Amino acid sequence: MSDVMPTSELPSRRSFLRTGTLAAVALPAAVGAITACNPDLAARQPTVPDDHAPGHDAAPAAAGPKTARERADEMDRHHEAGIKAFPAKTEGKGNQPLAPKMVGGVKVFELTCSEVQWETKPGKRVKAWAYNGQVPGPQIRVREGDRVRVLVKNELPESTAVHFHGLEVPNDQDGVPFITQPPIKPGESYTYEFTVPNAGSHMYHSHHNAAVQVGNGLLGAFIVEPRDRSGEPKVDVDYTMILNDGVHDFTLNGKDFPATEPVVCKKGETVRVRFMNEGMMIHPMHLHGMHMTVIAKDGWPQPMPWKCDTLNIAPGERWDVLIKANNPGTWAFHCHILSHAEAPQGMFGMVTVLVVQDATTA
Amino acid sequence: MSDVMPTSELPSRRSFLRTGTLAAVALPAAVGAITACNPDLAARQPTVPDDHAPGHDAAPAAAGPKTARERADEMDRHHEAGIKAFPAKTEGKGNQPLAPKMVGGVKVFELTCSEVQWETKPGKRVKAWAYNGQVPGPQIRVREGDRVRVLVKNELPESTAVHFHGLEVPNDQDGVPFITQPPIKPGESYTYEFTVPNAGSHMYHSHHNAAVQVGNGLLGAFIVEPRDRSGEPKVDVDYTMILNDGVHDFTLNGKDFPATEPVVCKKGETVRVRFMNEGMMIHPMHLHGMHMTVIAKDGWPQPMPWKCDTLNIAPGERWDVLIKANNPGTWAFHCHILSHAEAPQGMFGMVTVLVVQDATTA
Amino acid sequence: MSDVMPTSELPSRRSFLRTGTLAAVALPAAVGAITACNPDLAARQPTVPDDHAPGHDAAPAAAGPKTARERADEMDRHHEAGIKAFPAKTEGKGNQPLAPKMVGGVKVFELTCSEVQWETKPGKRVKAWAYNGQVPGPQIRVREGDRVRVLVKNELPESTAVHFHGLEVPNDQDGVPFITQPPIKPGESYTYEFTVPNAGSHMYHSHHNAAVQVGNGLLGAFIVEPRDRSGEPKVDVDYTMILNDGVHDFTLNGKDFPATEPVVCKKGETVRVRFMNEGMMIHPMHLHGMHMTVIAKDGWPQPMPWKCDTLNIAPGERWDVLIKANNPGTWAFHCHILSHAEAPQGMFGMVTVLVVQDATTA
Repeated sequence: MSDVMPTSELPSRRSFLRTGTLAAVALPAAVGAITACNPDLAARQPTVPDDHAPGHDAAPAAAGPKTARERADEMDRHHEAGIKAFPAKTEGKGNQPLAPKMVGGVKVFELTCSEVQWETKPGKRVKAWAYNGQVPGPQIRVREGDRVRVLVKNELPESTAVHFHGLEVPNDQDGVPFITQPPIKPGESYTYEFTVPNAGSHMYHSHHNAAVQVGNGLLGAFIVEPRDRSGEPKVDVDYTMILNDGVHDFTLNGKDFPATEPVVCKKGETVRVRFMNEGMMIHPMHLHGMHMTVIAKDGWPQPMPWKCDTLNIAPGERWDVLIKANNPGTWAFHCHILSHAEAPQGMFGMVTVLVVQDATTA
Repeated sequence: MSDVMPTSELPSRRSFLRTGTLAAVALPAAVGAITACNPDLAARQPTVPDDHAPGHDAAPAAAGPKTARERADEMDRHHEAGIKAFPAKTEGKGNQPLAPKMVGGVKVFELTCSEVQWETKPGKRVKAWAYNGQVPGPQIRVREGDRVRVLVKNELPESTAVHFHGLEVPNDQDGVPFITQPPIKPGESYTYEFTVPNAGSHMYHSHHNAAVQVGNGLLGAFIVEPRDRSGEPKVDVDYTMILNDGVHDFTLNGKDFPATEPVVCKKGETVRVRFMNEGMMIHPMHLHGMHMTVIAKDGWPQPMPWKCDTLNIAPGERWDVLIKANNPGTWAFHCHILSHAEAPQGMFGMVTVLVVQDATTA
Repeated sequence: MSDVMPTSELPSRRSFLRTGTLAAVALPAAVGAITACNPDLAARQPTVPDDHAPGHDAAPAAAGPKTARERADEMDRHHEAGIKAFPAKTEGKGNQPLAPKMVGGVKVFELTCSEVQWETKPGKRVKAWAYNGQVPGPQIRVREGDRVRVLVKNELPESTAVHFHGLEVPNDQDGVPFITQPPIKPGESYTYEFTVPNAGSHMYHSHHNAAVQVGNGLLGAFIVEPRDRSGEPKVDVDYTMILNDGVHDFTLNGKDFPATEPVVCKKGETVRVRFMNEGMMIHPMHLHGMHMTVIAKDGWPQPMPWKCDTLNIAPGERWDVLIKANNPGTWAFHCHILSHAEAPQGMFGMVTVLVVQDATTA
């Protein structure tokens, strides 16, 4: 990985915290970024021939048949409104770091499963089954070799169980009802405990009536930092992006554009994106303006990193990529199954942006 | 491939025969495995608070509205019944080795295409078009450089033709009606003959009205062992898993969970799985508890093997993986498009298990 | 890449022109190829037992119930008619090279977006939104470091914008309305200009109401030859194959089988295929008779080329492969989601052939 500097300390933890910091300031910055990064946007108007002069639609009839131009303007207003609303504020934010309690050298995480109302975009509230009220559930981040205990309380009307997808735990901690444990009945609690066996970008989710329960929101990231960090890339931003396509429509980290979250960095920085697909469809994620270097699959390093701008992510897969943010601006970043990203009314669903702030303007 | 020992003899042939042996003994062993590998399964009950005490549903009303707990228990009983039934006995087993007749140095295989009733899970019989009465058809396994003759007899009501998918045969043996041969009419026979050109995990299937005929069951594995075995991994179990999603619903080797077949090995052994997709959808296969090392694509070695726990297999693709079975227990192994694997009534379709028997308990 | 000779000059440009030449002569050659490459096709008739003698259907009743054999014959006639019609002539050909005008050292390309009638197969005319009247739009082929200007004129009833998919252009040339530019209104024109930043197989397409506009045909190939050609494979045929699955049905370069275009080469030659998916579904493309060596993803070289016969291409992806054409004959080349390629009435959609002409017969 010639374009990534060697690591000499614990950058992921540091950048992870930093990401949290960025998230707090990024939203207004990103709004500004979209309209401000091209300050001459208004100046670069398309050429207008006489028969399409702006005056043509200066006073459109309020009713009656519309001209093509009037219909185009109306469509464009919808598109513009979506972009200008981004990143739209909604209630609730998923994938937030979950701090463990330390109990006798064990990192203890508590997860409560319950039904909540989840706002996926402004004004759209849907029923969700959530861990700790978040969709995706809170992000668990530990280190290879840590002793971990996960206390699960089930406040749902159905039984459930938690599978640690990608972690090579002992069989009796695998979370599959009637194969490795009894189901966790409504109102009951259950405890998982294991020594974290393998590093990488993993997930936790329901493994009981899972097509329904994971679709409803019972899923989250379980990220394991390696004990030996000598092979880890040095990154400035470490971003986890969980894709879903269930009853909550097409979402990135539980939100539907324009309520998705921008990924924000400075020019020259390296961004690590950990893609995770918790849905039932493929999502080929396309980044504009820069390529992505694929470094890991399901938490395992790829033997030879390779480059792309569109990465096909199938259900259950995790892919880690690095982005060398050398091209300043606000860049669309979306699923390239276009019907998951744009309608005649404008962009929606699996769309966000990567904002690369120029040092001179930031 | 540092975790695989060099090969000094013909392990695949040997392990193939051994696989056959295992298949005969694996079913009861696996049933035992699921309930026995965690002997304390009943002891590890979830914590039950007072208001959800077991007595609560000790005498549910036979009729009338149900409580959430009663509905949960009912759902769980369905899930448990499915797991306990596994591996369920059904009539017919596909993908069985087909022994050739030796005729003057030529390995002669006979395939008869006919309509049969095929039991995909207990009590579910569907119309199938089969080679030699099996879905998938019998497994053909030969060696690079072998002279092979395939006699096809068509007892179906439609014409057909056999394409050797992945084999670089001479054009006139390619099996595409009106491009390389006339169709084989109902009641007629046809002979293919060629010297096996390239090693790897290949397939044979109908190439006439194929969306219908392959969907109906006209497909099978055509595995070619390399003449030079120095690059072959040493494996203890060599398992072929054919995915399908046609009129017979979601199947692994022609069977629907709980009638699918467990993959069984001992702790410390190496399992080779040859995934083959004969359906029309992708199937990202996810193994619990251990990772898979991808060694070949469409029969061609990958230049640098890579690791994953979820492998996306597209129609027509074959992927070979190695599993180092170092984590004892019974592990779910399923398509991660969850709607291909689980419904509110329990697991179904593309689900099986990998049973890793501990030396001390086996 | 041991099977590809080093490049000493500009073979891609030369072979590109040569491809154009081949295209002019290939169609009749290919027709001939299918029936002529196996001159003994008629001689290799399947064995007919007495009760299925040809005389049986010599005089089928014009009306009344049909026998299985009569129905099979009728189905086969449809299949045969499709193959014999290939490559069927249709009006219009997409993906044709677009020669730039040189203006002061800048390569200037003009693209006009308009609604046209597009013939996807004989007699099937569909509404299309096209660049310069072609679906796919004309192929733009430039060199890394070239200064390029693209003049876009919008004669559609909707606004549009052009995104250069895969090119790492400055942000204000990225073609995303309201993020990087205003939309190009009906009747207006707009100019993009940039220095070509990165080599490879890229695309251009609408990024406004794109699920509709790209589906309607607003897409094309944007191929960038590297300035340093030392890493380029030497190829004899350089073929771009754009997959689509929108309102025009399943198409290769805008055409539906039997109106698709054969890829034609001579035995011993190397063919480069640049797959590009502009649709909304995956398409695992399967080549009969020979394997493909994958050399690039989204225009970026793969660090270790790898071999396959079925390559899964997701929306927005581009994959470059090399085919060493060492197996003479006419080879089916199709999407292996069989419902995208064959119906009971015969082959359709995403099907073409690779014709490998034998030196002794060509």
